[in-house]
Amino acid sequence: MSKNEEGKNESLIVNKEITPREVDFSRWYLDVITAADLAEHAEAVRGCMIIKPNGYAIWENIQKLTDGMLKEIGVKNAYFPMLIPMSFLTKEKEHIEGFSPELAVVTHGGGEELAEPLVIRPTSETIIYDAFSRWIHSYRDLPFTINQWANVVRWEKRPRVFLRSTEFLWQEGHTAHRTAEEAEQYALMILNKIYKVIAEDWLAMPILVGKKSEKEKFAGAKSTFCFEALSQDGKSIQAGTSHDLADHFAKVFNVNFLDEKNETQTVFQTSWGISTRLIGSLIMVHSDDKGLILPPKIAPLQVIIVPVVNGNQDVDSAINNLVTALKEKNILYQVDNRDLRLGEKCYEWERKGVPLRIEIGPKDVAKGGAVLARRDTGEKEFYIATGSELSQQVATLLEKIQTSLFEKAKERRAAMDKIVDTWDDFKKAIEDGGYVYAHWCEDSDCEVAIKEETKANTRCLPLDAEEETGEHVCIHCGKKSKSNKRWVFAKSY
Amino acid sequence: MSKNEEGKNESLIVNKEITPREVDFSRWYLDVITAADLAEHAEAVRGCMIIKPNGYAIWENIQKLTDGMLKEIGVKNAYFPMLIPMSFLTKEKEHIEGFSPELAVVTHGGGEELAEPLVIRPTSETIIYDAFSRWIHSYRDLPFTINQWANVVRWEKRPRVFLRSTEFLWQEGHTAHRTAEEAEQYALMILNKIYKVIAEDWLAMPILVGKKSEKEKFAGAKSTFCFEALSQDGKSIQAGTSHDLADHFAKVFNVNFLDEKNETQTVFQTSWGISTRLIGSLIMVHSDDKGLILPPKIAPLQVIIVPVVNGNQDVDSAINNLVTALKEKNILYQVDNRDLRLGEKCYEWERKGVPLRIEIGPKDVAKGGAVLARRDTGEKEFYIATGSELSQQVATLLEKIQTSLFEKAKERRAAMDKIVDTWDDFKKAIEDGGYVYAHWCEDSDCEVAIKEETKANTRCLPLDAEEETGEHVCIHCGKKSKSNKRWVFAKSY
Repeated sequence: MSKNEEGKNESLIVNKEITPREVDFSRWYLDVITAADLAEHAEAVRGCMIIKPNGYAIWENIQKLTDGMLKEIGVKNAYFPMLIPMSFLTKEKEHIEGFSPELAVVTHGGGEELAEPLVIRPTSETIIYDAFSRWIHSYRDLPFTINQWANVVRWEKRPRVFLRSTEFLWQEGHTAHRTAEEAEQYALMILNKIYKVIAEDWLAMPILVGKKSEKEKFAGAKSTFCFEALSQDGKSIQAGTSHDLADHFAKVFNVNFLDEKNETQTVFQTSWGISTRLIGSLIMVHSDDKGLILPPKIAPLQVIIVPVVNGNQDVDSAINNLVTALKEKNILYQVDNRDLRLGEKCYEWERKGVPLRIEIGPKDVAKGGAVLARRDTGEKEFYIATGSELSQQVATLLEKIQTSLFEKAKERRAAMDKIVDTWDDFKKAIEDGGYVYAHWCEDSDCEVAIKEETKANTRCLPLDAEEETGEHVCIHCGKKSKSNKRWVFAKSY
Repeated sequence: MSKNEEGKNESLIVNKEITPREVDFSRWYLDVITAADLAEHAEAVRGCMIIKPNGYAIWENIQKLTDGMLKEIGVKNAYFPMLIPMSFLTKEKEHIEGFSPELAVVTHGGGEELAEPLVIRPTSETIIYDAFSRWIHSYRDLPFTINQWANVVRWEKRPRVFLRSTEFLWQEGHTAHRTAEEAEQYALMILNKIYKVIAEDWLAMPILVGKKSEKEKFAGAKSTFCFEALSQDGKSIQAGTSHDLADHFAKVFNVNFLDEKNETQTVFQTSWGISTRLIGSLIMVHSDDKGLILPPKIAPLQVIIVPVVNGNQDVDSAINNLVTALKEKNILYQVDNRDLRLGEKCYEWERKGVPLRIEIGPKDVAKGGAVLARRDTGEKEFYIATGSELSQQVATLLEKIQTSLFEKAKERRAAMDKIVDTWDDFKKAIEDGGYVYAHWCEDSDCEVAIKEETKANTRCLPLDAEEETGEHVCIHCGKKSKSNKRWVFAKSY
């Protein structure tokens, strides 16, 4: 192992078959996570997960990218206590109602029973806005924009690694603004300028961007905007949210400022977050029956170089030339010269989702090239090129893989999109999977009834949904379509 | 504000006097933290702190540096649950005895009382080694080296921001090795090759490196190695530790491997960590009565450029030239063109510890230069240089400041060092502050008695302590000096 010593721990990977997606999608998902050695359920702590080095490296890449983009727009990182007094959460009525079933409660500290129980943050609006109330004084302090990288705990009865775990890692952004409009615009900007770029340009996941229904919005928000990705089995995954909190929290935490006329005003706020759940989405959108598939731009290891034989001087020298050239292009590579059969190595790197595998043997060197094997399509091709010329081919191919993964996911989703106008069509469409576009009365009771009958609910009202002309009625109850725009329904994770 | 919009929030800084160190060192410490807007006590959650953007930016720099160095030596990041079953902690007898008074206990989750209480990690040996027992199989898997960036909770009755808080942020490294010797060497390597470089080369803090006494070692370790910095008031600060755990945890968590002969062996382990406490040390070692002083290599902002007048075209153009040149050198700068008086600006940046201030006015431009003011010494000097020539002077001066801070701290510490051989001299030396080198019987009861009488205890047996010839006796009880080497005693934070 030239680049680092990862190879040492390979004996840890159990060579277990991966259940095909067709047979059992849920089982397949867990098998891929095991095969790629990304994470495991923490058996000792129900609902929690252990993120292993291969999984954590993906999270580190998402963090680095997100953090850089947030700093570019002037957001600063800070850190607030993980323990929150129960009394803080109860201040905002909807907030405590929403989160109360999911709380982990600390009742003892330092050997004594606490006078007031503390809650492990399920999200930090309350403790952060208590600080905002001390920090914000004047209109000159606004907008006030803070981000926190942290762990949060939401008690989970049906845990699933990455997608739903009692403890997970995330970033939570919190801002304060002068006007309601500015707050709403900021919440939308985070979604469109930051999260959409991360999801589509880096994770190669085409996303649906929209507004949540009243029932599905964040507890305490005026509106919740979201982005959703479509899993290969036709279910939707909420991958991140951005909330327009209006002055709901500001009023109860007294986050006020003096305006130009020296009059006291209340701020308007936003909060927004993405989490380790993104890794779950990534797997469900791209991977296949052979194991993990990672888009090159987010892959901790982009290229694995496998000598067809070990200890051949010509092969080693060709690899050395290539490695020098890859380094210059900042391509993340590793050379696997462990004492294993070629087939074993290929099998392993396929399961682990390395986007590109380069095989170089004496015959390839003699012909002045190397074999490049794409993980996404399985295509293997001989390229006549060495050193920096070959590294250029590698760079081009990595870009192609990135684009191709995005296009493929887009096509898959488009093929599953359905526009329906009758309840029978709706039920069938939901059963077939994918996004189902339908008119809706926007009544929460109706949404509950739809869910009971079909296991699907509203994912969102797409931001780009167009108002239709003519009279339209709710797909379920037949009442008037509230906005005359089509909501998106689907089953979800 | 050209570079970013930090200026907006400046009205948040209360212009409060800083208590001089001579008057009240503890008060001074808190005043500097407030003046530089680094952090605050979380009033709502006793013992916890809020790390504000200026403080968190220092932590991010420490993280980035440490993380890069750890990756270089092959350590990989992972993430383990924050909640640990109480039964895990009780497995290692010394471990639970040491940590039991500091635990925060979760008794309720998801609306129900838990069958077994969960503890918020005070450190993660137990839950990580439970995973190691599943992950490590063969001698080929060793050494196994993992790191985690996380928050931990240790209930704190006498909290002090950064130095002692109920929740703090840290990295904890955990490794497994084939032999006892290899584990000990690894624990020492982390101290000498990683932590010493961070402390001395980056934080400019001269450190004392040594081995802890039996009483002061980590609960469950065979030996604890530490590095300590000397605060300006002559007290020592334990700034980081590296533990040789031998097979103490491995035995109770069954962390075993098959050796070459296919025989089952138990691993030997290390764990090691540095935390947000380092920021507290940094302040106590370098800062002065005017506010924070930061070594340039760790400062989030290295240079503040203050135009003497705003809106002067010549000044602006000189600043633009300088800024272009600073960017090329990756020097972190900001231009402060807020509508405030020059004096107000200088006062503020002094308090915030920016290493170098550059003042440029029309007269300076006319003379073809600028005034450079060092934060550490207060020296102000006119430099005849512009653009890239000036940026070179800036780079050189920043290096000088870095070296000079380290040298100054080293001299201060050396001036306080005392070698003593009688109890009367010892008591006086401890009262005067600084490190006191004395022979000791190495008996824990004797250490307790010394602490009761002088408020000082052993800081460590320095790794480079030399064995002295002749007969030497314990400074306190008169029994034989156990190692014939001098231990270091001091009061501490």
